[in-house]
Order: sequence, then C-alpha cells, then structure tokens
Amino acid sequence: MSERTLKVVFQPEGRTVQEQPGVTIFEAAQRAGIAISSPCGGQGKCGKCKVHVSKNPPEPTPSEIEVLSEEDIRKGWRMACQARVAADMVVDVPLSARTSEQKILSDGVGVAVSVDPSVARRFVRLSKPTVEDLRCDLDRLIEALPGVGRHPAPLNVVRRLPGLLRQNDFGVTAVVSNGALVGLEPGDASARCLGVAFDIGTTTIVGVLLDLATGADLGVAARTNPQIAHGDDVVSRIQFASMCAENLAELQSRVAGALNEIMTELCAKASVAAGDICRIVAAGNTTMEHLLLGIDPTYLAQAPYVAAVRSGVSPRAAEIGLMANEFARIALVPNIAGFVGGDTVAGILATDLHKSGAIRMLIDIGTNGEIVAGSRDRLVACSCAAGPAFEGMRISRGMRAMEGAIERVLMPRDVEVGVIGRSRPTGICGTGLIDAVAELLRWGIVDETGRIQEQGDLPQNLPEPLRRRVIECESAGEFVLVPASECGGGHGIHLTQKDIREVQLAKAAVFTGIQVCKKTLGVSDEDIEEVMLAGAFGNYIRREMARRIGLLPDMPISKIRFVGNSAGAGAKMALASRSRMREAEEISLKTEYLELAANMEFQEIFADSLFFATPKSE
Amino acid sequence: MSERTLKVVFQPEGRTVQEQPGVTIFEAAQRAGIAISSPCGGQGKCGKCKVHVSKNPPEPTPSEIEVLSEEDIRKGWRMACQARVAADMVVDVPLSARTSEQKILSDGVGVAVSVDPSVARRFVRLSKPTVEDLRCDLDRLIEALPGVGRHPAPLNVVRRLPGLLRQNDFGVTAVVSNGALVGLEPGDASARCLGVAFDIGTTTIVGVLLDLATGADLGVAARTNPQIAHGDDVVSRIQFASMCAENLAELQSRVAGALNEIMTELCAKASVAAGDICRIVAAGNTTMEHLLLGIDPTYLAQAPYVAAVRSGVSPRAAEIGLMANEFARIALVPNIAGFVGGDTVAGILATDLHKSGAIRMLIDIGTNGEIVAGSRDRLVACSCAAGPAFEGMRISRGMRAMEGAIERVLMPRDVEVGVIGRSRPTGICGTGLIDAVAELLRWGIVDETGRIQEQGDLPQNLPEPLRRRVIECESAGEFVLVPASECGGGHGIHLTQKDIREVQLAKAAVFTGIQVCKKTLGVSDEDIEEVMLAGAFGNYIRREMARRIGLLPDMPISKIRFVGNSAGAGAKMALASRSRMREAEEISLKTEYLELAANMEFQEIFADSLFFATPKSE
Repeated sequence: MSERTLKVVFQPEGRTVQEQPGVTIFEAAQRAGIAISSPCGGQGKCGKCKVHVSKNPPEPTPSEIEVLSEEDIRKGWRMACQARVAADMVVDVPLSARTSEQKILSDGVGVAVSVDPSVARRFVRLSKPTVEDLRCDLDRLIEALPGVGRHPAPLNVVRRLPGLLRQNDFGVTAVVSNGALVGLEPGDASARCLGVAFDIGTTTIVGVLLDLATGADLGVAARTNPQIAHGDDVVSRIQFASMCAENLAELQSRVAGALNEIMTELCAKASVAAGDICRIVAAGNTTMEHLLLGIDPTYLAQAPYVAAVRSGVSPRAAEIGLMANEFARIALVPNIAGFVGGDTVAGILATDLHKSGAIRMLIDIGTNGEIVAGSRDRLVACSCAAGPAFEGMRISRGMRAMEGAIERVLMPRDVEVGVIGRSRPTGICGTGLIDAVAELLRWGIVDETGRIQEQGDLPQNLPEPLRRRVIECESAGEFVLVPASECGGGHGIHLTQKDIREVQLAKAAVFTGIQVCKKTLGVSDEDIEEVMLAGAFGNYIRREMARRIGLLPDMPISKIRFVGNSAGAGAKMALASRSRMREAEEISLKTEYLELAANMEFQEIFADSLFFATPKSE
Repeated sequence: MSERTLKVVFQPEGRTVQEQPGVTIFEAAQRAGIAISSPCGGQGKCGKCKVHVSKNPPEPTPSEIEVLSEEDIRKGWRMACQARVAADMVVDVPLSARTSEQKILSDGVGVAVSVDPSVARRFVRLSKPTVEDLRCDLDRLIEALPGVGRHPAPLNVVRRLPGLLRQNDFGVTAVVSNGALVGLEPGDASARCLGVAFDIGTTTIVGVLLDLATGADLGVAARTNPQIAHGDDVVSRIQFASMCAENLAELQSRVAGALNEIMTELCAKASVAAGDICRIVAAGNTTMEHLLLGIDPTYLAQAPYVAAVRSGVSPRAAEIGLMANEFARIALVPNIAGFVGGDTVAGILATDLHKSGAIRMLIDIGTNGEIVAGSRDRLVACSCAAGPAFEGMRISRGMRAMEGAIERVLMPRDVEVGVIGRSRPTGICGTGLIDAVAELLRWGIVDETGRIQEQGDLPQNLPEPLRRRVIECESAGEFVLVPASECGGGHGIHLTQKDIREVQLAKAAVFTGIQVCKKTLGVSDEDIEEVMLAGAFGNYIRREMARRIGLLPDMPISKIRFVGNSAGAGAKMALASRSRMREAEEISLKTEYLELAANMEFQEIFADSLFFATPKSE
C-alpha cells in the first residue's frame, strides 16, 4: 500500500532527493538546490536544459525526439523540463544546462550579480627607484595601484615589502581588499583569486567555491555541522557554550574544522590551492555566526535575546582557525536580530525582496521559522518558535526526513504513503505530517478545532477504509496511518490527538508570524504578490497541503514558489560583489524586527491561528 | 691653564649639562632641553622663572633680592634668568617655572598645541536592552559614542563585549582611536589616558610621558640606544641587520627593550600603570624607525637609498614588543627620505617651519646632518654626510663629548680649554674641535686653504705662547693644544694637518647642504630670517665659532638660535594632537628631498666650501 519514492542523484554535486514518480527532472533538481536554465519556460523547445541521465534514462518524449539528436538520446541525454522520474536515477547536470551560478533558483527569473569582489590579487611591476625617483617602497606600490588608498598597511606586509620587491625584479602581487593593501605575494599570483561562500546551518554546512575574477562557480561541498555533538538545536548549543570558555572554544573549533574540511574538498575537486582562497563570506543564523567567531552566545538565549554583534566584525580567516590565503578575511552576512540571522538577510538579498515593487513574503520554516515581508519601501521580519514538530520531534512516531520516514501521504479513498528509501516505514517526518493532517481535515476526520472525530461523528461520505483507521485510545481519537504489520519498527504508525495538537501549535506559530507581519504592513493576503519558501524544509513541502492546514497564507498555489537555498545564494552574491555586501548591511539595518512577545495582539492572533480553516483558495 | 666646565643637573629629569661659569641657569636649562617660562623676557622682573638650586646656590643678584622673598632666597630659590652658574649645581625646576610643555624651547615664543589626541578612553553607561530596544551590543556601544563610526571592530573586542557589559552593569570604557572603537575595558577606566612620545636617536633615546586628556607632561626618561652594541652609526647597524633575520630581530628587540625600560621608569616616577599608556608616538631617523618596526633597512644603505616605508604603518604596540595598554598603537612620525627621517619632520613640526612666512632654516648636525630650508610656500631638505669628525672620530685625539673631553677652546693669547668633568683632558670632542679650528683661523695659524702654516709663515702678531705650539711632524704642521704633561692619557693632544682636513670635509659637507638648499630656493643669506640649530650637538655649538669655520651661514649671531630637542618636541606634539600628526604627514609629503649626489653643482659647491673664508658678519 505504501508507495515508494525514487532516489534521484544529481552530479557532480552528489545531491540526492526523494521524488514521487512523474515529477520532471527540472522540478527534482530545483528541490536539490540545483538551478537548471529554462529559457523557453519549460515548453520543451530550446533544449538548453539538456542533462545526462547516466542511470535509468526514461523513454524520450516527443519534444526530446524533436529537439535532441538521435545520438544524444541514445547516450542518455534528456531535457530536464520534459523527462520525468520513473526509476532511481543519476543525473549529470553539465555547466551548459545550469543557470549562471550568479543567479538564484527562481522559476527562470534569476538575479544577475555583477562581479565586484571586495578582494583582488593585483600584479604590478613597479618602476625601480632611481636618484630621480626616491619614493619609498610602500608609496611606490600604493601609487601603482589605482583605487588603493593610503590606509595604514599591516606591519607584516611592510616587513616583507623591500625584500620581496628586490627578489622579484619589482614584480609583486598585491592583495587588495576594499581599497586597502592587505597582503603581498612574490611574483605574479594574480591568476587565481578565489572565494568561498558558506551557508552555515545548525545541521548542515554548505560551501561554494567561486572564482572571484569571473564569478564562475568551481564547486560545492557540504558537511554535517559537527557542533551537532553538543545539541541538535541552537538553544542546546548556546547552553553548552555558556558553561565555560572551553566549551565555546570547542564549538568554534568544530565549525571552523568543518569549514576547513569543506574548503579542502572544494580545492581538491577544483585542483586549486587553499592559498588561493582570498575571501570567505558566511551566512548563518545569529547563533551560528556568533559561534563561528567565538563570541559568547549566552545572551541570545536570555531575554530580551540580543546579539553581541550584528555586523562589522571581519577578522583574518587565520584568526578563527580557517585555512586560506594568509591575508584572507572572513565576513559574515549581517543579522537582523538574535533570532533573525544573516541567513535571512542573505535570503532577502538573493530574492531581491528589498528591491521589490510589490509586497512579497519570504518564509523559512524550521524549529525557528523566519518570516520577512514587505517591499522596497518597508521590510518587517519576525521569528516564530514553531518547535520541532516539523522536524518530526514531539510527535509520537515522528522522525527526521531520513530512510524509513513517511514523507508523503495521500488519502484518495484509503491511505497511500511515500517512504524515503527502500525500507518499510518506521515513522513520519514533517512533510508527511503536514500531508496527513491536511488529508484528515479534507475528509473531516479532524475538525477545524483539531479534534479527531469519534466514530459516530465521522462524515457520512467517508470511505470505509479510512473510517476503519479511526480508533480510540485513552479517551482520545487516534488515526492508524500504517498498521504495525506493514511497518519496519514493530509498531504501527498512528497519529494521536496530541500529534495533531503539536501540528496545530507549530502551524499556528508560523501563521501568527505571517499575520503579525501582514498587520504591521497593513496588508492582506490579496496584496501579497508572492510567497517564497526558502530552506531545506520549505523546499520539500507540498504547497497545497501546507496551505490547507493553515501553515501558509490562503493564496493561489501559483503565487507560492520555492526559492531553494536562498541563504547560500545570498552568501555567494555577497562574496562576489561588495555592492551586494553593502546591500546586505542596508537590509540588516533597515529591516524592522518584530518581537512577537512584545506584540500586544500576539496571543489573540495565535489563539485564532490554532484553528484549521478551510482555505478559500482551494 | 685648562678651564673646567661645571656640571649642572636639572631635576626631576636628572638631565646634566656641562657649562662655562657665568651662563645663566635659563640658558643652561635651554641646552638641557628644559623650557623655563620667561614672561618678562629675561629682565628679572616677574619672578616666574623661580627655580630651586639645591646644591651651590649662587649669591643672589639685586633683581632676585628685589623680586624674591628673603625666605625663598635663604632656601635656595633663584630666578633662572638672573642666577649664573658658578659651581657644580643641582637645580630643581618646579612645574610653576616651566613653560606649558606643549610649547617648544624657543626664546619665549613657543608654539601652542591644542590637545586633540588620536586616542581616548571613554566611559559609557549604556541603556540596557529591552523588548523595545533590541540593538545588538556592538551597535548599542557604537551609537553611545558620538563621533565613532561603524568601522570593523577587532574580534578580541567584540568577543569580550557581551560579558563585560553584563558584568559591569553596562558601564564600560571604550578605547577609541581616530574615530574607531579599538578596545574595551571593564568599568570606568577613563580617568587616565596616557601617551609616550619617543625621540629615538642613534645614540640616545628619550621618552616623555604625557597625560593625553590635559596635555600635561608627567616626566621624561632617557636611555642609551642599546643597539649601540652593534655599531655607533646607522650604517654599521644596517650592515648588521642585513646579515640575517635574527640580527634584524635582535636590533628590533634591543630598541623595544629600551623603550620598555623608559616606559617602566616613567610610570614608576609618575605612579601610573603601563596599562594606562594608550598611545605611543616615536620620531627617529629613517633607519631607527625601520629598525623599531623590524623592517629590513638594507636598502637604506644601497644606492639609491630608498626607504621601505615613509608613513602609514601603525601596529599595535604589543606587536613590536612594547608594554603598554593592550589596545595601544604606535605611530611613527613620517620620514622624508632614507636619510631625512621622522626626527627632521618632527623638528619642522615643532618649529612651525612649514607655516613660516619668512625663509628659515633648521639644521641638525651629526654624522649625518639634516638641513631643511624654506617657508610655508616651499620646503627643501637634504642630508649631508658630515662624517663622524664632530663626534670626535677620525680625529687623532678625538673623542665623544664625555668625561675628559676638551669641549671648549679659546686662544686669547695662549690656549685655554674647557674639559668635561673633573679629570685632566684626554682628547677633544666636536665642539672643542670647532672652537680650536676657529681660533687657529683667527690667529692665521691655519690659512683659508686649511693648511697649518710653517713657523716661517706664521703672522707677525701671533703671541709667542701660541707660536711655540706650532710644530712640524712628518713634513706637515701640527698644533700642540695640550702637551702630554698636562694630559690624562700619557700623550699630548695635538691637532694634525689631517685633523684640520677632516674638519674641513665635515664642515664643507654641511655647508654644501646649506648652499644647495639656498640655491634651490633661490635665496641668499640675507633672505634667511633665522637659522635654527637643533639636536644634541647643535645645542652645544658656539655659534660664532661655527660660523667662523664656515659650518654655519655668514649671518648675525642673533639670527642663529638653539631650538633644543625639536625632534622630541615634535613627537610630543604629534602625540598630543592628531591634527599635528596630520601636519607631519603633509610635511613629509610636501618637503622636497634634495639628493646631493644628483645635484649637478654639488661637486663644485663642495670644493668651494672646503675653503675657510672669513665671515663678513664678524
């Protein structure tokens, strides 16, 4: 009865997604955070989205036969917008099929980034001193570097200057950052100036290697955040760090170690040296950014939850234990508040929300959901403590989205579930939970107050297979999603009344955040041009299901779009362009943080949001 | 027959000078680099220059009896402008008798300096974060510090910020430098913000402790430059440093060690902590500045003799091994060229030469003499390799100005010499040499070509005692200044023909520099309003003697004045005032360096200058 999902692996990144049969490779890639170009808008006409399916290429479609060559088809090339997932697949996405990596995932719209990095390696061959030209070495160098000012130069640079000049026939490479001389290298090292943009999540860290001269993407690599040994969520990490300086140092060194591993992998893949990495930009939630810098995050977890630093710390990479060019600095995308971090600012940057003429909304759902709403005129943001229900926690048979998790539920006349991997289901993860509750609501098994109906109160039209699954346990209703006989764990997967309540609390938290943003802006759902779902979880949500349970605003599905890893995309932009980094600073300063606890109407809106209301849009 | 000089010790500095009987305490203090105020212009009317003579107070003069109280006189108080040196003395100069230490030694004119230091310790008590005010700690601090901008803050400062704020009820001291937050201390540490200005000579290092809040002078201390173990002059130090990195590091660490000793002494005397020293400014010749920063000076000694750095290096004091406040930075007064250093720029700054309406000239005579000439419209500078003759070297019986050195010579009818200390003469130092040659010229014993006359060619009017001193040795003339029987060293002190030649070469080098400056500016002696003699040696020269041998321009003695340690005074100004430091940068950029080797007329002028010409002014 359970429907298996299919594994699609995208190469060369090696990113894997679980998909239902029938979705296009384009959609699957989107979920994997890989942007495939689609100049014809997915009509199967241009062939620009040509990818290579090296395992189980599907039957070619008529469009593919028309557009692609016979040889291409024979070798496994398909058009991502046409080919559909029909089996476990391995898909190679060549550079030719990718959107410029300076664009963000976004239904083909894309945001162009000018390459204007804050750091450059500039080779200069200086005129030699003569009796007629007795300028000192430093003045000689600075004056040969247009745009570089007379800032105080680092002592270690000046110390090596006279020798380096004369050992290299006055040809040296200046490392220039934000108009200042910051480093000096022998000879011509200007061929490569690389940067790495990190998206530092509480769970996963992703790094992208960029050629800062051209903006070219040279690879991506990821690691689990090794701080996870000291807690799954930010609060437990803060508690650990608060205990003593050694703990803080350990968390700092763990995350720095992961960044180093990622950089090592990136450099190996791209056959470049770590010494060519001249700049690092990282975006993470406020706690992750504090921990990376080794700044005590204690007060992020104590009312009124203020950050030590929003912006304006940019140490040398070596100072925080990162391996890169000795002159490389790391900059963090500035945060907005203790619970709205640099990752959110990066997301705003990547989606150009701060330049939008129309009202748009950016939602990243996690244990802490972040919501930003507004336009170029005004931006408001809030953080909502959804709790870990969507991570599968506090749910009787809840689990993370991993092998064995029910990640999709449909109830046409009986229950059909999609399970991650090839094993029997052992629990249910966040997306499956949303689906299940949405379907229970549709059939009236759960009413708008969230109560599981007793047998006698179930709707007349309820199909018998579903009706049989409603049982009573400890004087509350319960729904048998998968009986023990079909499960992997020796027990059935039931949804309890308490599970429904947890979903209600979580969705109410998010929805309240959305409402407070709307109220503050004075707009209603109709005024919202678009809702953008960001982040790992948002990317897997089925929009109609999320809307049905009231997790998302009641608006047409076409106005709700996935923007993938917008934090990572924003970090990349901030790395490639200093004007983009300046924009990030402006976003950080101008976005109004709404503290829900301080909102007078919060309790009222929250109480309202606990109900399930049938969306008008459906 | 030899006339002893008298030792005058000035307290509390402990500076000692050797003086002839009859000079006023005021003049002696001037030579010691101590500025005594003289509102009445030395007429003995105001009593403001009242000092305490604790050893051998002279008989009171009529003015003193009129102005001072009987008790004062009995206790040893005298007026510095009236009391004359008659024995070895110890003079205490109270604060009341001092010119504001923001003024430079200068016949009562003085240059006022506004106290506008680049560093300040500012105590702020911040409003605490509330739900209505969730600014991060750093923004909260910066916004409470008017005039401080959002520069990147040092990581170590931000790391301690959250804890320090909360442990101190949000009251902290910000160390602010040039409009940027550079440090953070618990509680209110704003009571003291000190600075030390160093004059780093090749031989002697002098440090002055200043209260940067008030500009008050808190003491002075000096040490011999311990680099002297590796050579007396800059060239031998450069050679030593050039050999290997360890040698350079040793010279750096020696000078840093001396600075630390001086700071330790200054702090002990003033009962303050080294941690209160928040800024250090140093002026020295270009080699000394390079060595202090640990920058390889090799190329300062290789044609075309360019510096590694003119300006724009300002490391943390700790980075170069200096003990001070952990956030203190050191700045160097910028240099003009490889052989015209920050000490010369400091001298220009202190004498306001760069603001002068009239043409003036600043001369610092040493192994390398520096000459600056001009006005606010144009400044030119050159360095002249006078050689070490004035240091007593390359002279058959030459010696430094120390115990036993003949430092003054007069030949009324026979030779009278002044000797430093109480011992018999053992040699002759620079000032004695100048005197001796000047007197030999006056009597015609040496002719204008520099030749010591043979007995037969000596002038008719030459007194017999002098005539007898002219002997012949190895077919050249020689002058017996002090016969062996009156000397301490077992040999006589003779001036040989070669000695005269060395003096000729030295004075020609300086005079050529003066001429090239004048020619470049297109001015003659009459156009020069004033010649200022700076530095240790210049301060002891007898002007009429120096002028007679052609070391100084042919102009009235009244136009030649001593400006004392103008380099130290300039360093103090640059420490006390950042606008003064900016002026120093402008001076460094605008002063034209004249490379004598590149001057087409150099050889010609130099050859002319070798002659001794009787000055018209005499």
